[in-house]
Amino acid sequence: MTDFQSAIRETAGLIEDALDHFLPTQDGPLGRVADAMRWGALDGGKRLRPFLVIAAADMFDCPRVRSVRVGCAVEMIHCYSLIHDDLPAMDNADLRRGRASVHRKFDDATAILAGDALLTQAFEIIAAEETHPDGAVRCAIALELARGAGKAGMVGGQMIDIYAEHKDFDLAGVTQLQRLKTGALIRFSAVGGGLIGEASGEEVAALAAYAEDLGLAFQIVDDILDVTEDAETLGKPAGQDAEMDKATFIKLFGMDGAKSKAAELVDSAKARLDRFGDAAGPLKGAADFVFARKN
Amino acid sequence: MTDFQSAIRETAGLIEDALDHFLPTQDGPLGRVADAMRWGALDGGKRLRPFLVIAAADMFDCPRVRSVRVGCAVEMIHCYSLIHDDLPAMDNADLRRGRASVHRKFDDATAILAGDALLTQAFEIIAAEETHPDGAVRCAIALELARGAGKAGMVGGQMIDIYAEHKDFDLAGVTQLQRLKTGALIRFSAVGGGLIGEASGEEVAALAAYAEDLGLAFQIVDDILDVTEDAETLGKPAGQDAEMDKATFIKLFGMDGAKSKAAELVDSAKARLDRFGDAAGPLKGAADFVFARKN
Repeated sequence: MTDFQSAIRETAGLIEDALDHFLPTQDGPLGRVADAMRWGALDGGKRLRPFLVIAAADMFDCPRVRSVRVGCAVEMIHCYSLIHDDLPAMDNADLRRGRASVHRKFDDATAILAGDALLTQAFEIIAAEETHPDGAVRCAIALELARGAGKAGMVGGQMIDIYAEHKDFDLAGVTQLQRLKTGALIRFSAVGGGLIGEASGEEVAALAAYAEDLGLAFQIVDDILDVTEDAETLGKPAGQDAEMDKATFIKLFGMDGAKSKAAELVDSAKARLDRFGDAAGPLKGAADFVFARKN
Repeated sequence: MTDFQSAIRETAGLIEDALDHFLPTQDGPLGRVADAMRWGALDGGKRLRPFLVIAAADMFDCPRVRSVRVGCAVEMIHCYSLIHDDLPAMDNADLRRGRASVHRKFDDATAILAGDALLTQAFEIIAAEETHPDGAVRCAIALELARGAGKAGMVGGQMIDIYAEHKDFDLAGVTQLQRLKTGALIRFSAVGGGLIGEASGEEVAALAAYAEDLGLAFQIVDDILDVTEDAETLGKPAGQDAEMDKATFIKLFGMDGAKSKAAELVDSAKARLDRFGDAAGPLKGAADFVFARKN
């Protein structure tokens, strides 16, 4: 196992335990929405976004008890977005990471409400005093998270994605879509880790630049995997982009061009972290992982 | 026009202008979600929740520029909840305040995303420095808002409502449902007004007690209006509770019993404010309004 593999396994365990704590089962009439939130959020995934938060915060000797909370918040936002994206009104996906999506396991109304509740709870966690004693730090994180998750970020990207599926987007269009849809939350993760670690403005800017390259590389690799991998490896149906005639980096660059573009972005992402020296090892490992991943 | 009527008309105008500012139209691919957010939030309603925020904050000489921002945040949460509640998967309502609901005007996917974006933006507004110079104050408000809006508040209430429609709830059950579904956000409004005005803990507790009585009265009156008023007055279909065999206060108390219970709660709500003297006039006026309202 590489250093990166054992590091992300460790942080995934911390996040799983913390999410289990934040999302208890409940008796009575709220039990159903509590179960749906757990189904959508507790799935033993890699937890890449929380890893970025924690690895960035670690560079500034931030107590893990703080960075894990920020990691849980971004993971809740990520999971709510998957729950809503999977709904029949959106991507109509029955499977998510190899098991029933929330609306298939429960029903559409429960999935909508479970997503709403996860989104709301993410801000509850950030705003609470346990996250950081300085309210200004907590608010700076909440503000970045809201910007990354909202209309000018992830939600906007999903909106563009839905209405762009059958159109011929150029490079600028596809890049904007991905910068919003997946990039904004990856960017938040590195930035949020810097903020909870009380990094300087310049350090946060370097983390943002790293994450912007990383986020674009992540999406290009996603597009590649949709073509090259089968449903079992992906945990969701394969070949959907081509079937829906989606605007992807493969359509624009071809397969070889997409691969070299992703490699270029990963190198660039790592170079953004040179100022941090050896402490940046885990974040650089994440960039290599994104390039080499299979799902 | 009574003092209350002119006061709520004034604050509704402030909120409408501020929401118009926070929710601009947009060119390009984000135009559609921006339009849907405007359709769902800019409707010239009474803006009762922001009125409570502003009237509570006014008692502590809070600058309006701050309390209006908190009022916009709670109104965005209220509007997102209506957008999601109206979806076919939930209440399947074609009409809202006498015009097409968001999913009827646009489509289901756009309505889901517009709701998500409004919910997210509410926290963006609270977290921003313009709301209050002290981050601890902003976080305290964000925390209360998240608690009122999330699983232990509004979303939980909606969840119970969906799965309770055809059941025989007792008084404790109906009260819990309404305390969450409508009460939690009304409670937040008064509490949030106190917090943005830097009220003491005891003062905030008095505002919370006022709003808890008020919220329950509000829901009882809602149940009464569903029986006594027609669709034109309500701006939505009438008689739905009985048709869906919903658990309501009418079912439990009868019409006369419900009316006297509401009157009792309004008196109690007003008495909670006695410590504030004449400054509490607008909030007391809101309690009288809730009792006398027709829609």
